[in-house]
Amino acid sequence: MKVLITGGAGFLGARLARTLLKRERLSGKPIDEVALADQFAPPRDLLADPRVRALTGALMEQSAKLRGEIFDTVFHLAAAVSAECEADFDLGLRSNLDSTRALLEAVRAAGNAPRFIFSSSAAVYGPDPAFPLPAVIRADTLPTPQSSYGIQKFICEQLVADYTRKGFIDGRNVRLMTVVVRPGRPNGAASGFFSGIVREPLNGQEAICPVAAETRVALASPARTVEGIIAVAEASRQALGGRVALNLPALTVTVQEMLDALEAIGGAKARALVRFEPDPMIARLVSGWPAVFDNSRAQALGLEPDPDFHSIVRAFLAERAAGPILLH
Amino acid sequence: MKVLITGGAGFLGARLARTLLKRERLSGKPIDEVALADQFAPPRDLLADPRVRALTGALMEQSAKLRGEIFDTVFHLAAAVSAECEADFDLGLRSNLDSTRALLEAVRAAGNAPRFIFSSSAAVYGPDPAFPLPAVIRADTLPTPQSSYGIQKFICEQLVADYTRKGFIDGRNVRLMTVVVRPGRPNGAASGFFSGIVREPLNGQEAICPVAAETRVALASPARTVEGIIAVAEASRQALGGRVALNLPALTVTVQEMLDALEAIGGAKARALVRFEPDPMIARLVSGWPAVFDNSRAQALGLEPDPDFHSIVRAFLAERAAGPILLH
Repeated sequence: MKVLITGGAGFLGARLARTLLKRERLSGKPIDEVALADQFAPPRDLLADPRVRALTGALMEQSAKLRGEIFDTVFHLAAAVSAECEADFDLGLRSNLDSTRALLEAVRAAGNAPRFIFSSSAAVYGPDPAFPLPAVIRADTLPTPQSSYGIQKFICEQLVADYTRKGFIDGRNVRLMTVVVRPGRPNGAASGFFSGIVREPLNGQEAICPVAAETRVALASPARTVEGIIAVAEASRQALGGRVALNLPALTVTVQEMLDALEAIGGAKARALVRFEPDPMIARLVSGWPAVFDNSRAQALGLEPDPDFHSIVRAFLAERAAGPILLH
Repeated sequence: MKVLITGGAGFLGARLARTLLKRERLSGKPIDEVALADQFAPPRDLLADPRVRALTGALMEQSAKLRGEIFDTVFHLAAAVSAECEADFDLGLRSNLDSTRALLEAVRAAGNAPRFIFSSSAAVYGPDPAFPLPAVIRADTLPTPQSSYGIQKFICEQLVADYTRKGFIDGRNVRLMTVVVRPGRPNGAASGFFSGIVREPLNGQEAICPVAAETRVALASPARTVEGIIAVAEASRQALGGRVALNLPALTVTVQEMLDALEAIGGAKARALVRFEPDPMIARLVSGWPAVFDNSRAQALGLEPDPDFHSIVRAFLAERAAGPILLH
């Protein structure tokens, strides 16, 4: 089993790689190689594993080099993030749409129709001026993306669906919720502060919250997110049910509830490090994202949302205590 | 007022051009120029009009030449048709997706954010294995395209929506129903026979119907289709209601009802010229297209479906009697 992970040196890609290497198997087969394509080199711990192969460089160029090489499973996580795409329209199209097409063509050329898991995003949902989102997002809710990032993700879902229909890949679109708590530093995603307002105070640093305390968010822990991605990769086509993207299960919390959990676990001192400082651009983007999802399709695959935000904060602290989280 | 029509030498493009030239005005302004971009030269009657400018060549190259030129309204009708795209995946992506991106970039470079009407298609709707279409398609029904043509149209809708949100264009996505009766010869569209089974017998020629008599189709006459495209171009953004594509009004008929109208108007001899000869590829594509639409959003713009199929057949005969329908 040869696995390719794009964005493989990023936070989620590296975590996925570690999880796969520890499992040693995917879809019932032993994993011989995990290739990590990324503009950055993989973290040291991954590089030290003899099964890891680093493919460092822009995805567009990597795709040209990999054209026709056989992988059994491809996880396509690489993307320019939401705030970047909103600030630089052309960068977003190039990084998210053109690179995905190049990768799809590279994989198609191999001719083995590998599993191809595309990480899309709940950001495909946004409130069109005349098409307000329903209170609860269902599997068949029409996405009307209100950001270039969301548009690009939704377009790539369509490409993955059609490459699958044509038999070029066995593609699966999986929409990630906002992942909290991300370790490391802010990454330019509009949603980055959701991690920052927990991570920074627990590290004794100040954090700015750019949205109101009553803002609700649909989120998932890193562990549940990676678990969901792997479950979608391993599911039979029948269990998946069609080529429409699968929304991973979401826990709905308010910023206030997040800060309450921070205070309960990290103390009043940690809580006091969070300052509210509204950012209209971030607030507009985030407030458009839906906060409540019908999780039943994901649950049919055996996936459950995180039980509560307290458990997410505790898991973050436990992982931090276990050793430094290696990032590029 | 300078107007650009891509696919301007095709059946619908030429008809749109004739209608605009006859109206002399669009959006309340006199029309000074109608540029017809197409791989073919425009029909003679259009070339003879001093307001017409022919831009003959591939859209990709035309877009490079037109980059930055100011048009007030752009009608983007050019596309590879459904059966072509299904037979040649790469051609479809190039002709429909890449050319549309090139055109959008050309128009964006002009900086005047013109009205940009993208002709999408009811073919964006198809039955995903696990997401059967509802009995009636509404404005917020999730498209799950089951053809490369439908996927490409849906992707371009997303691009048009985002270029609009960013202020690069004032874009409007309009989904055309199957247009019947098309004059001229079959054009390689999977839906082409819907015109053929009326047009050919009325011309004394045999026609083959590749689907069963009970097959239902959502269709519109050429006149109503062009009327709808112009109404969408002239509508205020508020009247349009959001950036989600607008489904033009549809008349739902069965093949049997079409043949009954043919016999009522053209006689038993005409009817006898139609032979049923099933084509599984065409039948699979067409049976996946939805046949019943909720027309209320289009009706709010003042658009109505054709009243019945008899009137469509009579209009075709009246136009044919008025003189040859000029095609390239």
